[in-house]
Amino acid sequence: MGTSAFRHRIALLRQRLFENGNESFDAAWILQPENRRYLSGFKAQDSQLTESSGSLLITGKDLILVTDGRYTTEAEEEAVDFQVYTIKQDFAESFAEILHSVGAVSVGFEEEFVTWGLHRQLSEKLRSFSSPVRLVPLEGIVEEMREVKDPLEIQAMAASADLISQIVDEVISWLKPGMAEKRVAWQIEGLAREKGADGLAFPSIVASGPHGALPHAVPTERPLKAGEPIILDVGVRLHGYCSDMTRTVFLGEPDPEFRNIYRIVRQAQIAALKETRPGVQSTHPDSTARQVIGDQGFGDYFTHSLGHGVGLATHERPRLGPRKPVKLKAGMVVTVEPGVYLPGKGGVRLEEMVVIQDDGPRILTKSRCFYDFAP
Amino acid sequence: MGTSAFRHRIALLRQRLFENGNESFDAAWILQPENRRYLSGFKAQDSQLTESSGSLLITGKDLILVTDGRYTTEAEEEAVDFQVYTIKQDFAESFAEILHSVGAVSVGFEEEFVTWGLHRQLSEKLRSFSSPVRLVPLEGIVEEMREVKDPLEIQAMAASADLISQIVDEVISWLKPGMAEKRVAWQIEGLAREKGADGLAFPSIVASGPHGALPHAVPTERPLKAGEPIILDVGVRLHGYCSDMTRTVFLGEPDPEFRNIYRIVRQAQIAALKETRPGVQSTHPDSTARQVIGDQGFGDYFTHSLGHGVGLATHERPRLGPRKPVKLKAGMVVTVEPGVYLPGKGGVRLEEMVVIQDDGPRILTKSRCFYDFAP
Repeated sequence: MGTSAFRHRIALLRQRLFENGNESFDAAWILQPENRRYLSGFKAQDSQLTESSGSLLITGKDLILVTDGRYTTEAEEEAVDFQVYTIKQDFAESFAEILHSVGAVSVGFEEEFVTWGLHRQLSEKLRSFSSPVRLVPLEGIVEEMREVKDPLEIQAMAASADLISQIVDEVISWLKPGMAEKRVAWQIEGLAREKGADGLAFPSIVASGPHGALPHAVPTERPLKAGEPIILDVGVRLHGYCSDMTRTVFLGEPDPEFRNIYRIVRQAQIAALKETRPGVQSTHPDSTARQVIGDQGFGDYFTHSLGHGVGLATHERPRLGPRKPVKLKAGMVVTVEPGVYLPGKGGVRLEEMVVIQDDGPRILTKSRCFYDFAP
Repeated sequence: MGTSAFRHRIALLRQRLFENGNESFDAAWILQPENRRYLSGFKAQDSQLTESSGSLLITGKDLILVTDGRYTTEAEEEAVDFQVYTIKQDFAESFAEILHSVGAVSVGFEEEFVTWGLHRQLSEKLRSFSSPVRLVPLEGIVEEMREVKDPLEIQAMAASADLISQIVDEVISWLKPGMAEKRVAWQIEGLAREKGADGLAFPSIVASGPHGALPHAVPTERPLKAGEPIILDVGVRLHGYCSDMTRTVFLGEPDPEFRNIYRIVRQAQIAALKETRPGVQSTHPDSTARQVIGDQGFGDYFTHSLGHGVGLATHERPRLGPRKPVKLKAGMVVTVEPGVYLPGKGGVRLEEMVVIQDDGPRILTKSRCFYDFAP
């Protein structure tokens, strides 16, 4: 992203925060790693919840990135529009001083990314100033901005989807009965590195036979067997942007029961893709897929939501599920991933990542692994 | 760990929480992934901050593990003494009901692992019950229990340290000028998988030449060069337990300035190791190392703490730094890792992981890479 993209986002955020008669905030404090990167270009990730690599403080006139000595150089290079403050001692105390020095009175914060303990410490420090500063939840303002991708973001996501598609094609061409799930997962990770990904978007799922019935199975030493469904749910991160796709493959002749289920899941996916368009409610593609699967008698075995937004995070807004409808918009990037899982036997899941467009969804994930048995 | 280890820990926790005249708590709510595993055996990690794989609720009579459908089977298999509740809908609402049903009134929680938003949601749900439930910070009770390792834990940590030592020896034998830092990091990760680690304990640091001056450098495409110091700071997780070690190596004849610095850092480490013993304050080994380095004129270039506890987490209590003294005890496992960093030029860091024992520290990390130039 060039600096102009970040400036545009900051302008938009300020508009939402400070203008339009919104009097709730005069500053925004951004810790969430993807929000931080989206607004500033600062790429560092957080190794753990209690080890933040930095946060942004955005007011009507200031752009400040607060970090510690480990990240100062990186922050200065990446977040070019931000003034970088390196905190040496206690975070809460230093940050309270910064809030005071910029004259912030009502500071929006991310309630899902500030621990209760940090909020308590900061509140205590703030109370010691004569002009009291209030912390007010931001309620997902930046997450909402991230829902609709701009053209450069879509380009980045298409590249990420291309890369994982290449990897999946290559791995599928190698699969043989007897290979352990773990070894397949490891090959995927190796290819991701070789081909220049930042890393995996999430730990790969390689779930064969009965393991495929657990939607979040961890790869094991179980050897792949001919005929059974093998679920590969994988994604990479490339220039920060995540991809996410799932293929279900069979080695040799598919088990007849799962061949039938595959056909149903693929029918459900195609029907849902047609309904993934601007202006419809996010619950509609989900109910479309659920209808197809239910009509075939497998309604109880489609146990998760149809899909989710993807972007700087693997899971972001909007969710495509049976609850909490929001209106879909052109430029959103979402997954469409119906599945049917038979406990103790196995599962089939098929997942595409698509950009919602006026003229129908543009499928970013490519892979030649679909079976020739037509849906 | 056998079930007896977990039962012993639960008994100890209950004693600290509910007995000894401590009237603050009648339940403990444990979300922190390592605390959760330490007390129950439930191995799942949290993929992201807002996606918890579960939490424990421990009262005087109940042991409950609350999770969602993705982890039910795993939780039942691993946390054998716990009753597993699978939450289907809103977490805050379901958890409030569970708290009410067990009759908890004063619930200890981990303020550094509960977000402000979750605390708010849960508080709102709790207010709707006639008998009010209070949430009270636990203040590190479980983290303190984890400081001193039991014999089975020390065995697990020795195995983890053995594994990373083998990997480091093997990687060092391969290093050649021209190899990119990233490729070395990737080899380390590959060996970790091949040799049966759960994974890396943290992203490997491979920092050559000037990159070595940044204590938390990320591996780049920079090729290794002869003569310059190359820092390898690496660790694996094995059966849940982390290892952490650092070696600084030179390819060919060491640069004379850094050869001298290496000698000083090694002297500081040896001096600090002697002072890492039961009964001394945790600040004492740090000041010992700092003294040696300061005496040689490099005091300003040792920019971090001497070390930290290691266990189920890579960084845990106690911290061996210049502030916040605590008394060291036999059975603690800590790193001793002095370093000297010359900005723009390079750095030397040497790190051992040791068990504190009455008869002197037992060094768990083994590696033949020390230079024959004596300290």
